[in-house]
Amino acid sequence: MIEDFTLTCPIPISQYPHVLLAHGGGGTLMRQLIERMFLPVFGTPDGVPHDSVALTLPGNKIAMTTDSYVIRPLFFPGGDIGSLAVHGTVNDLAMSGARPLYLTAGFILEEGLPMETLWRVVQSMQVAAQSAGVQIVTGDTKVVDRGKGDGIFINTAGLGMIEHSLAIAPQSVREGDVLLINGDLGRHGIAIMAVREGLEFETTIESDSAAIASLVLQLLDAGIEIHCLRDLTRGGLSSALNEIATSAGVGIAIDERLIPVQEQVRGACEILGFDPLYVANEGRFVAFVPADCASRALEVMQSHPLGVDAVAIGTVTGTGQGLVTLRSQIGASRILDMLSGEQLPRIC
Amino acid sequence: MIEDFTLTCPIPISQYPHVLLAHGGGGTLMRQLIERMFLPVFGTPDGVPHDSVALTLPGNKIAMTTDSYVIRPLFFPGGDIGSLAVHGTVNDLAMSGARPLYLTAGFILEEGLPMETLWRVVQSMQVAAQSAGVQIVTGDTKVVDRGKGDGIFINTAGLGMIEHSLAIAPQSVREGDVLLINGDLGRHGIAIMAVREGLEFETTIESDSAAIASLVLQLLDAGIEIHCLRDLTRGGLSSALNEIATSAGVGIAIDERLIPVQEQVRGACEILGFDPLYVANEGRFVAFVPADCASRALEVMQSHPLGVDAVAIGTVTGTGQGLVTLRSQIGASRILDMLSGEQLPRIC
Repeated sequence: MIEDFTLTCPIPISQYPHVLLAHGGGGTLMRQLIERMFLPVFGTPDGVPHDSVALTLPGNKIAMTTDSYVIRPLFFPGGDIGSLAVHGTVNDLAMSGARPLYLTAGFILEEGLPMETLWRVVQSMQVAAQSAGVQIVTGDTKVVDRGKGDGIFINTAGLGMIEHSLAIAPQSVREGDVLLINGDLGRHGIAIMAVREGLEFETTIESDSAAIASLVLQLLDAGIEIHCLRDLTRGGLSSALNEIATSAGVGIAIDERLIPVQEQVRGACEILGFDPLYVANEGRFVAFVPADCASRALEVMQSHPLGVDAVAIGTVTGTGQGLVTLRSQIGASRILDMLSGEQLPRIC
Repeated sequence: MIEDFTLTCPIPISQYPHVLLAHGGGGTLMRQLIERMFLPVFGTPDGVPHDSVALTLPGNKIAMTTDSYVIRPLFFPGGDIGSLAVHGTVNDLAMSGARPLYLTAGFILEEGLPMETLWRVVQSMQVAAQSAGVQIVTGDTKVVDRGKGDGIFINTAGLGMIEHSLAIAPQSVREGDVLLINGDLGRHGIAIMAVREGLEFETTIESDSAAIASLVLQLLDAGIEIHCLRDLTRGGLSSALNEIATSAGVGIAIDERLIPVQEQVRGACEILGFDPLYVANEGRFVAFVPADCASRALEVMQSHPLGVDAVAIGTVTGTGQGLVTLRSQIGASRILDMLSGEQLPRIC
């Protein structure tokens, strides 16, 4: 049964079918939104909403991150801006090997946004947060005049605990490291693009957006000496690898034939003129691990639901500092450049 | 000498006079923006930019907050969206009595924004951050298509350390508590409104936006048993007091004659039809302290540059639960309601 969000919305839709400027004005309407919608869904750690939230952490080594989400459309096959705003920030924390704990949520709403849309997004955020094991602890709502925003923008900042003693960063990457990815590439970006372009396929391409912190923690628990992690979002695999090659001052060689891309995604890429190696994902990442624990790491990844199709795609080389070399489908080698501009605007 | 921002901008203005969608696309243009503008100005705690930043805190009791800033116009007498985005979030942390340490910065830029404008705002943020003693440690940039944003929106999330053992919250408010504010009200809101409405006065009304964490820490260092703090932003003094009266289940009585409002601000309020008690401030706050340490607290506040004009404006009463009573200029008493909607949209 599909939920009728107009019926469950805690703000009476008949009275407030749309978000008004006043919902961000600091008065009773804003308070109503916070008390009836945000607090009951997200909860508060200490009961009463205040300017900031007081928290006691289980330690003092933390990771901190922030991301704003401006994706269009707000809802797409496999997710929406709310789930994405949780997954993306949780994943940025996971890329430090941190255990994500707390998120903040900053909403910038456009006057006239259907109240029901906000309600759907808020609920989706909470479902995603619960499933990722994080708590949305504090928030903020601003409303901008009609035509000065685009429905909803969401910022989430995240805090996670670092429980390992590794230096998970480009500087730790070493010659001989093996590159592992946790599955096929391009589904998220192409799912969005297909909706925007009105492309129809036999079966709908769904975004595989997911929170992968538990997979990373499983690798750490298994004692894998992770050198570097990077999620394959804007700019895709190609930009991520180019950034790391430059930061670490190493060469990277990958083999296109080893990189899984679903047939339908590959087809859509051909129609749209995209290269799946540049397409944004959310919930796909590359791990750099020493060669002697690569096969063990791969086993650990494959034992997790979000890493079933994990594969090794290449290695770190001692030559070609700062360059990423791709061995293509037909066996030829070429330099894989960084994207210069945007391939898919507003994909996250 | 006024700085010519087109000359100092680290992104060549002749080549990129405006922000492009590609500046948020995850490719080389975004990397250039991060490496040439954001990192040199803000710095990074660990040198290399990564998905999230690893930090070691001096303790484990923290405060966390988030705020998005959508103020119009971006620049106004006494400040701009950049300084405001630092002050506002630092002040939210201060309202927990926390020592602000770290901020994140999430930019949502509109395609076509002059690059020079971004540069001015970024520099202003850093000046404000340094002066408030906080570090901007990680960030994110998104660019939305022309007409889907409004120049710049900024989200800042903040983390501060709680070094005291008080419960600074509405629940701690007690009958007999004295209400102190740190100076005159309304300058920030009216400065913005005067610009928007094209009002001209003999002297320009300047925003008094400021980071008041050091003042709050000075109160705590002096051993003042603070019961509750609240900054007087959206909705002004009136909304703040109504919220606390409701949350704490107490009555609050204040005396309008004790509340300082500059003559020019009062005049502008009359012209615009505003009540200064509802006008937004940034850097003005109310402190609830026990009667027996009120005069000592006032002395401490007055000894700080941001509290020179601090005054006691009222008390917490045992009657009229949830209500704020105002003794007016002419001596009559009336209920001071919460604002229902927005009086000044996009004031922060």
